[in-house]
Amino acid sequence: MTAETRPVDHVIAALRAFMGDRVTTNTAIREQHSHGEDTTTPVLPDAVAFAETTEEVSQIVALCHRHEVPVVPFGAGTSLEGHVTPVRRGITLDLSRMNAILDVSQEDMDCLIEPGVTRHQLNDHLRDQGLFFPVDPGSHCTIGGMCATRASGTNAVRYGTIRENVLGLEVVLADGRVINTGGRVRKAANGYDLTRLIIGSEGTLGIVTKIRLRLHGIPEATSAAVVQFEDLRGCVESVIQVMQLGVPVARIELLDEVQMAACIAHSKLDNLQPLPTLFLEFHGTEAGVKEQAEAVQEIVNGMGGLGFAWAADSETRNKLWTARHNAYYAAIASRPNVRGVTTDVCVPISRVADAILGAKEDIAESGLSAPMVGHVGDGNFHTVILVDQDDPTALDRAWALDRKIVARGLSLGGTCSGEHGVGMGKAEFLEQEHGMEALAVMRSIKAALDPKGILNPGKIFRN
Amino acid sequence: MTAETRPVDHVIAALRAFMGDRVTTNTAIREQHSHGEDTTTPVLPDAVAFAETTEEVSQIVALCHRHEVPVVPFGAGTSLEGHVTPVRRGITLDLSRMNAILDVSQEDMDCLIEPGVTRHQLNDHLRDQGLFFPVDPGSHCTIGGMCATRASGTNAVRYGTIRENVLGLEVVLADGRVINTGGRVRKAANGYDLTRLIIGSEGTLGIVTKIRLRLHGIPEATSAAVVQFEDLRGCVESVIQVMQLGVPVARIELLDEVQMAACIAHSKLDNLQPLPTLFLEFHGTEAGVKEQAEAVQEIVNGMGGLGFAWAADSETRNKLWTARHNAYYAAIASRPNVRGVTTDVCVPISRVADAILGAKEDIAESGLSAPMVGHVGDGNFHTVILVDQDDPTALDRAWALDRKIVARGLSLGGTCSGEHGVGMGKAEFLEQEHGMEALAVMRSIKAALDPKGILNPGKIFRN
Repeated sequence: MTAETRPVDHVIAALRAFMGDRVTTNTAIREQHSHGEDTTTPVLPDAVAFAETTEEVSQIVALCHRHEVPVVPFGAGTSLEGHVTPVRRGITLDLSRMNAILDVSQEDMDCLIEPGVTRHQLNDHLRDQGLFFPVDPGSHCTIGGMCATRASGTNAVRYGTIRENVLGLEVVLADGRVINTGGRVRKAANGYDLTRLIIGSEGTLGIVTKIRLRLHGIPEATSAAVVQFEDLRGCVESVIQVMQLGVPVARIELLDEVQMAACIAHSKLDNLQPLPTLFLEFHGTEAGVKEQAEAVQEIVNGMGGLGFAWAADSETRNKLWTARHNAYYAAIASRPNVRGVTTDVCVPISRVADAILGAKEDIAESGLSAPMVGHVGDGNFHTVILVDQDDPTALDRAWALDRKIVARGLSLGGTCSGEHGVGMGKAEFLEQEHGMEALAVMRSIKAALDPKGILNPGKIFRN
Repeated sequence: MTAETRPVDHVIAALRAFMGDRVTTNTAIREQHSHGEDTTTPVLPDAVAFAETTEEVSQIVALCHRHEVPVVPFGAGTSLEGHVTPVRRGITLDLSRMNAILDVSQEDMDCLIEPGVTRHQLNDHLRDQGLFFPVDPGSHCTIGGMCATRASGTNAVRYGTIRENVLGLEVVLADGRVINTGGRVRKAANGYDLTRLIIGSEGTLGIVTKIRLRLHGIPEATSAAVVQFEDLRGCVESVIQVMQLGVPVARIELLDEVQMAACIAHSKLDNLQPLPTLFLEFHGTEAGVKEQAEAVQEIVNGMGGLGFAWAADSETRNKLWTARHNAYYAAIASRPNVRGVTTDVCVPISRVADAILGAKEDIAESGLSAPMVGHVGDGNFHTVILVDQDDPTALDRAWALDRKIVARGLSLGGTCSGEHGVGMGKAEFLEQEHGMEALAVMRSIKAALDPKGILNPGKIFRN
């Protein structure tokens, strides 16, 4: 090699020796790994390595460590905050081939999986065993990616987020060492909670290579319903009352009239109107589900709800939740040639009406279109700010609106990110949200675990 | 001051200047702060400082930091693993006077408290507002201490441990800086989870000075019952079936025949027999509670249960749970002149029968008496190994039995501590449980956050 050989070239050459063509500099593949589903400017990694075992991940990371080359983990590429964009190039470590379901225990209601397993794949596998994995961010994401971003979604109001549903992890550290965190027990008071430290660390502290998940029994009874409202306030206030009454709803999702119009068109929901709407699901015993539904009906009737439309059979229910899960794509499809900037504010439940109705005003003032969906039972809602790709000012205006909605959320005691993570898109808000000293503690942990800064650099922290 | 003045004397003198007689070297007070409720050899701190504000805690810790003097936080002194024993002397920081309930929000079902608030105090305060704080380790501990040790207890099977019920913390770092972690939101994906890192860190990473807790609505209906069994296996297998069926019991507590004999004597449970027993509690709607109870009754009837004895009224229920909470003291009172060495193994639910029945054999072989209680729905059980204080060999034999029970738990995929924490008593097991590399990561975090090692030294890590 010549004197000009870059460190990454040494890494690529060394990887070729044991990975063969599973490490590639092919431009099309690098382009696929240059961005997630966000509006971040794509950056090509120097190479993409498709790992198949923990040992390989360990070797790849150790090589990168030796040569001080960045490593960016990649699952399904569904990040909305720039997590998978290799801003400092280096090696993108694609884990999607590590997708084995290694073990399912019906007795312990848990499973051991590799990080490239998607939640669809897992739930298809589990169905015959009477078990399911509840955390459901909607997209076709990998569970490794969900761990990285501390994902949640529609069921979190009942079953918790990924944080509450991971029992233990296998993690490759920045220098290639492999550790196991947690275990199979439901609780433990056995030292620092490394599992929770890795969850939500967005690939900046270690690479997750195995996951022990908590599973849940498929409920005896499930029912779903839709209720529409003339006005958004009644819709939001209904959710707040349901939560404050402690009704254990499995899902309670809000879609505003703009999002509903998009979903009706995209998912052929012909029996629904473009009005503020709640999608609901109830899990429990037959009697329990009935009782929950009655409690919610009483609340929504008092708030101007236009009556429950039941989705009794599983086909209608699937159509409903598929429409909800495709809300983001429906929003993007609602205008020609647009991309989306997504907000992800989460506030205490008592401030949800202020946050959502305030955001609606902000959107109206901005002149932009921004359909809104929300896991409102958790205080979390999203706006997908539509950015006309032919309008050179649109992206800046979208970011300005995003900042306004986030600032309002923070002023209401909320967070800039309920579930999508910080990545690059929300890094600017962290100091305001946590304070400089808490952020300094996060940085000191980063420095302790990844002193060379090779793991997904440029994420969470702005520099 | 003379040349021989120790660093701690400088600290004490400086503390006197702003704390007056709230810092003391009085021997009786130092003796009170020389140990918890465990068998660790007491060590007197050089002084005890009774802090009243976060600012004071910050000043005290900053002073100790400057002079490299150990600081040991102290709440109610109910630790069972030597957490509050100041093994390297220094300043014991008593937080029991920081016991204000600063704010309760009915709307958000949360509260902000100081660390010296006890769970009894909080629940007495909340009762009129229809709310309760479910985490219930039984003892008269402070909630700050519960955060430090990642406490849980009888209700965790339904409501989670302290880990799931803390929204945010105010923490004084090793150099006196104050940070806020988390917040008021139910979920967030906003950077490293410092809240969960501090919870369970046993005062070794920071001193908790405020706690934002998640609260729960007092259930519409509560009922409790006792069921006894001829044999322990049927009792344990009943719990496993209840959990695997997903019955959302609020409490399901096992007491073996030895513990029951002690409780009957100590708490005057005259209508019960010294047999393996389950104490149960059900929370929900009227119909839901009935349904849960019926499901459990069907299971225990199939497992040799001798029928439900209902504790319908709140007085009977309180007597039952007071007896359960006093189980440790009942055990100690069951023999003259004994102390207790407590095991705290937690295993996956499928291994509970092996762990418990195996521990019973270990106890029988040891010739010692060791009443057993268990939060078996979580896979967690305790034996209180009774140590005759007049028998010079008894303590060593008790530790040998403890090691045997823990080793079996670890071999079954369990942990050495379900809820009491590591402290000094379980530190020897951590390397085996986590592996050397994971323990090295914990040490590197400790070094990053407390480079001088002043915060509760000698706990969690053996050196």
